[in-house]
Amino acid sequence: MSNSRPKSKCLFVIQDGLGDRPIAALGNRTPLEAAHTPNMDRLIRRGVAGLVDIVAPGVRVGTDIGHLALLGQDLSNGPYGRGPMEAAGVGMMLGHGDVALRFNFATVDRDLTIIDRRAGRIRERVDELCASLSGISVGSDVEVLCVPTTEHRGALLLRGPNLSAEVTDSDPNRAGEGRKVLPIRPRSTNPAAVRTAAILNEVVQKAHAILSRHPVNLDRERRGLPPANAVITRGAGGPREYLNLAKNSGLSIACVSGESTVLGLARLAGVTPLTAPQMTANLGTDLEVKLAVTLNALRRYDMVYLHLKGADIAGHDQQPELKKEFIEKTDRIVGEILRGYSEPVPLFLAFGADHSTPCELAEHSGDPVPVFLAGPSVRTDSVTSYGERACAAGGLGRIRCKDFIATLFDYLT
Amino acid sequence: MSNSRPKSKCLFVIQDGLGDRPIAALGNRTPLEAAHTPNMDRLIRRGVAGLVDIVAPGVRVGTDIGHLALLGQDLSNGPYGRGPMEAAGVGMMLGHGDVALRFNFATVDRDLTIIDRRAGRIRERVDELCASLSGISVGSDVEVLCVPTTEHRGALLLRGPNLSAEVTDSDPNRAGEGRKVLPIRPRSTNPAAVRTAAILNEVVQKAHAILSRHPVNLDRERRGLPPANAVITRGAGGPREYLNLAKNSGLSIACVSGESTVLGLARLAGVTPLTAPQMTANLGTDLEVKLAVTLNALRRYDMVYLHLKGADIAGHDQQPELKKEFIEKTDRIVGEILRGYSEPVPLFLAFGADHSTPCELAEHSGDPVPVFLAGPSVRTDSVTSYGERACAAGGLGRIRCKDFIATLFDYLT
Repeated sequence: MSNSRPKSKCLFVIQDGLGDRPIAALGNRTPLEAAHTPNMDRLIRRGVAGLVDIVAPGVRVGTDIGHLALLGQDLSNGPYGRGPMEAAGVGMMLGHGDVALRFNFATVDRDLTIIDRRAGRIRERVDELCASLSGISVGSDVEVLCVPTTEHRGALLLRGPNLSAEVTDSDPNRAGEGRKVLPIRPRSTNPAAVRTAAILNEVVQKAHAILSRHPVNLDRERRGLPPANAVITRGAGGPREYLNLAKNSGLSIACVSGESTVLGLARLAGVTPLTAPQMTANLGTDLEVKLAVTLNALRRYDMVYLHLKGADIAGHDQQPELKKEFIEKTDRIVGEILRGYSEPVPLFLAFGADHSTPCELAEHSGDPVPVFLAGPSVRTDSVTSYGERACAAGGLGRIRCKDFIATLFDYLT
Repeated sequence: MSNSRPKSKCLFVIQDGLGDRPIAALGNRTPLEAAHTPNMDRLIRRGVAGLVDIVAPGVRVGTDIGHLALLGQDLSNGPYGRGPMEAAGVGMMLGHGDVALRFNFATVDRDLTIIDRRAGRIRERVDELCASLSGISVGSDVEVLCVPTTEHRGALLLRGPNLSAEVTDSDPNRAGEGRKVLPIRPRSTNPAAVRTAAILNEVVQKAHAILSRHPVNLDRERRGLPPANAVITRGAGGPREYLNLAKNSGLSIACVSGESTVLGLARLAGVTPLTAPQMTANLGTDLEVKLAVTLNALRRYDMVYLHLKGADIAGHDQQPELKKEFIEKTDRIVGEILRGYSEPVPLFLAFGADHSTPCELAEHSGDPVPVFLAGPSVRTDSVTSYGERACAAGGLGRIRCKDFIATLFDYLT
């Protein structure tokens, strides 16, 4: 690819979980269709729209796979462990032989039956809880590191000889019906996997003992809050190769997000993560701060990914009205960015999502996501508003995420 | 496939580099959209249109890959060396163990710094220069053949034992900034590759000595023209299997073109290359000659590929007006063919391109190319004019080149 300076800058707005289905309460429109989005509609009129399947039609993906695809990674080159992504989100990069896991702080009873998979979505003093787990003694040759990531989540890293990521999760992924913390098992007969599973089970046991008498939890119990008295782990993974998107494209690229997984993936893909404590990856995220950081990033980088989590949260919470309102807020931020942008080269805009989170499902679906590209010389189409059904008639047609990303970078380089 | 006589003949018009982007100077239309093309528009009204990605959306390809796809070759079955294609373009087919390279005649100074990668786009007496290089002595067991192809380009063939195509280019692909002719290196530790690289470096050195005192170059220097005093090589390749499109389809097929690469690929694909010196593969090509050869070919063959290079040249030269005018000339030739066609079976028409060459880029892009098929029984759509954005709404949808070619042959056989 060309190494000459790009003739434009690019803002790529990613609305997490944006795609939805028609909802009766919204007049049989999706939240995006029902939302008043004058800025995005004006942009789409000078853009080319389409529908994107992250992997393939009807295939559900998580935020991790969705963002891997949006960051230009080759999904056929899997698997990608969620643990190393979570660790990378807070800057903890794996060395050779390391194993990282993602975990939740959870509330369990005495026999490890799960009462709350997220310990009341604990946010306060999670760093103190993590600090009490770093350095747990599990044999002389393995180091345990524990760092907080987003809200009730953290990353656990094992460092030492003869470790393997071929182990199962202790997180049963659902609470209720008497589900317990699962024993971690090796996924193969590899002695390193057997050893790693044993070490992790010891970590889970010791963590429960430490957390149960931790001052943070004693305080929570006094206040009637569920104690974060257990860690439930998932997504074990080791270090692996990622495509360096910045080097590969010859562009300097940043990613503005409040979510550690997204920030971690950005870092792994050679994209500079930019965040601030006010970016909560939630409906209440401070969009003004995101706006300021994004405008600043557009001065310093050729391309900026702006990740907004709100639509996904509202989808999981089955709140179509809130989803619509968050999309409207996003549209206002887009308007502010267009007004505030003052670089000497044109701004190329891309809009997309990592997956659909229909309110009726309260989880991700395999529906394609609406996308568009707007810039000085794109082949415009007849689409005049940003919506799932409008984009189905767009000039991009229905394409895969990797093809959409290739198209975007073909315009930029 | 059927071996019965086809119920129609087919003309496939390939406009090289046809696809473009909206251009302000053309009223935000592409050259194809801006061009007055009554014949193609009349055809597309009884046709089915679409957008074609040669490999995949956003993926840039060269004329070679584009034509391989249009000629029904399986691109996943790569790599295809450019050297053997160039050689095939002038009828030089490789035997087992041969290695062919494409080369430019270039102008270099005493220390092999490149002054002009194309030696002033030399066209005259290139055959004499090539003749002086054929038979260069490089060891007792290797034969060197050198043939002119298009303008300043030629093909170099090595024939002998223990040769390998696993060698790098001596062409740095760009001139300027003191770039020199690169030493050719083996791409592997294979002894045949090491030997071939050494032989080629010797060829490059000896060619420089011979060409520097060649009468053609002494004459050029007297006339103030840059001497063609070096060969810069690229695209080493050996013989390989190609799908025989004619045998595979049961049709007799010809290809009318002025470009040696296209003619070479046609020959490799079992398609009869038809050319004439007046076909220059340039904006000034004699379209009347192309018309006569094409009409004659339609009498003798079931199917004729008509390759027109002008749109691509105008795109590379950033001349939207010239690109539009060349497309209009093409349309007139299409009209003449329709008038001149007098075979007893209907004429099925296909229109396409090998890639996009947007004027704003001056190089190939990954934009899809507009295509259509017109014939008595295709499933017509609502598209009424031949253009990039009009075809986005076509009945073929957005498909890959291999799928378009399969569709075309499905109609013909």
